[in-house]
Amino acid sequence: MRIGELSRRTGVSVATIKYYVREGLLPAGQLTSPNQASYDESHVRRLRLIRAMIDVGGLSVAAVREVVAAVDDPDRPLHEMLGAAADYVVPRYEGVGDEPGDALVAARVTVAELIDRRGWHSHPGSPAAEALAVAVAALENVGHGDFPEAVLEAYADAAERVARVDVDYVAKNVAREELVASVVVGTVIGDAVFAALRRLAHIEASKQVFGLDR
Amino acid sequence: MRIGELSRRTGVSVATIKYYVREGLLPAGQLTSPNQASYDESHVRRLRLIRAMIDVGGLSVAAVREVVAAVDDPDRPLHEMLGAAADYVVPRYEGVGDEPGDALVAARVTVAELIDRRGWHSHPGSPAAEALAVAVAALENVGHGDFPEAVLEAYADAAERVARVDVDYVAKNVAREELVASVVVGTVIGDAVFAALRRLAHIEASKQVFGLDR
Repeated sequence: MRIGELSRRTGVSVATIKYYVREGLLPAGQLTSPNQASYDESHVRRLRLIRAMIDVGGLSVAAVREVVAAVDDPDRPLHEMLGAAADYVVPRYEGVGDEPGDALVAARVTVAELIDRRGWHSHPGSPAAEALAVAVAALENVGHGDFPEAVLEAYADAAERVARVDVDYVAKNVAREELVASVVVGTVIGDAVFAALRRLAHIEASKQVFGLDR
Repeated sequence: MRIGELSRRTGVSVATIKYYVREGLLPAGQLTSPNQASYDESHVRRLRLIRAMIDVGGLSVAAVREVVAAVDDPDRPLHEMLGAAADYVVPRYEGVGDEPGDALVAARVTVAELIDRRGWHSHPGSPAAEALAVAVAALENVGHGDFPEAVLEAYADAAERVARVDVDYVAKNVAREELVASVVVGTVIGDAVFAALRRLAHIEASKQVFGLDR
C-alpha cells in the first residue's frame, strides 16, 4: 500500500510516518519508483506499537527506539524484551518533599524485604522497586509511615492476582510487536482501570464501615 | 503558638498560612494583640489536611474549600464527608482519542453492568464510575476492547480486597480532619503503591509464562 493508505489505516499522519522513518523507528517502505514507496502489514503493526508506546505509554522517541530495537532483535529473549518495554512505563510518582532523605532510605529497606519475603526475582534497584520505595517514602513524609506490614502484603496479594490475569491476557498475542504493545497499553490503562475500581470499592467499603455514623 | 512556630511545625511558610486564612481554608488565629495571633493544635491538624489535599491530592483551592466546609459541618454524615473528599481525587485518565464517541457509550454500559453485578451502590454517573468508563473506552480505542469480562471481574475482586484494607486502616483515625486527610493521601499514594507492586508482580508472572521462550 502507499503511504496515504498506511496513514488512513493507522490514523497516523503522513508527516508523522515520515518522521518515524527518519528516526529509525519504522523501516522505510519498499521503493517502487524514485519517489514512491510501498508499505505492508508489518508497517501497520509497527505503527500501532509506536502509537501505543507514545500516546498511551508516554514514552519518549529515544525510549521507543530502544524498545523497537529489542523487538527487532531475534536473539533477544521474549521475557527480556517485555522487561525492556515495561521498565519504561513505570509510573514516576512525584513524591512529597523533594530531597530523598531518610524516608526513602528506610522505604528501600521495606521494599527489599517485601521482595525477599514474596520470593520475587526483581532486583531491589529496578525501576518498579524504586517507584514503590518512593511511594512508600511519600506515605512516611505525610505522616502515614506507620501503616502495618499487613497492608503492604494485602496490596501485594492483590497485585499478584491482577498481574497473573494481565499476563495471561497479553500472552494470547502471537506477534512480538503485538505482545509489546499489549504490555504497554495494559500496564498504563490497567492502572487507570484499577484506580477507578478501587475508588468504587472504597465507596462500598466506606458505607459498610462508616455507614452508621460514629 | 505564634505563626512562626505553626510554620515550623507544619513545614508551611508563613506567607502560605496567611494565604490559607485569607482564602477561608484555615480559621484565623486568636488575636492576642492588635498584630499578633495565637494558633493551636486544631490549626496544625487543619494545615496537615490542606497540604495533603493540595500536595498529594492535587486538589484546587476551590475543591479544598468545599471539603473543608464538609469537615466543619457537624450535621454532615461522616460517610458523605468522605465521599466529598474522595470525589475530588478521582484520577482523570486522558483517554486516547479526543471525542467521547461510541467506545465511551459502550464502556458506560459495561461499567453500569459491572456495578450492578457486584451490587455496588455507586450510581453509574459518579466520578469514579465515569473514570472507569473512560479507561475502558481507551482500551477499546487502542484495539484492546475485546478483553473478557473475567478480566474486569478479577480487577474488581482485587480492588474490593484492597479497598477493605484501606478503609480499615483509615478508620483508625478519630478526628474528622485526620480521617479526610487519610482518605486523600491513601487514595492517591495508594494508587502509586499498587501500580508499582503490579509492575513487580508482572515481572514474576511474565517469568512464569514467558520464561521458557516460545
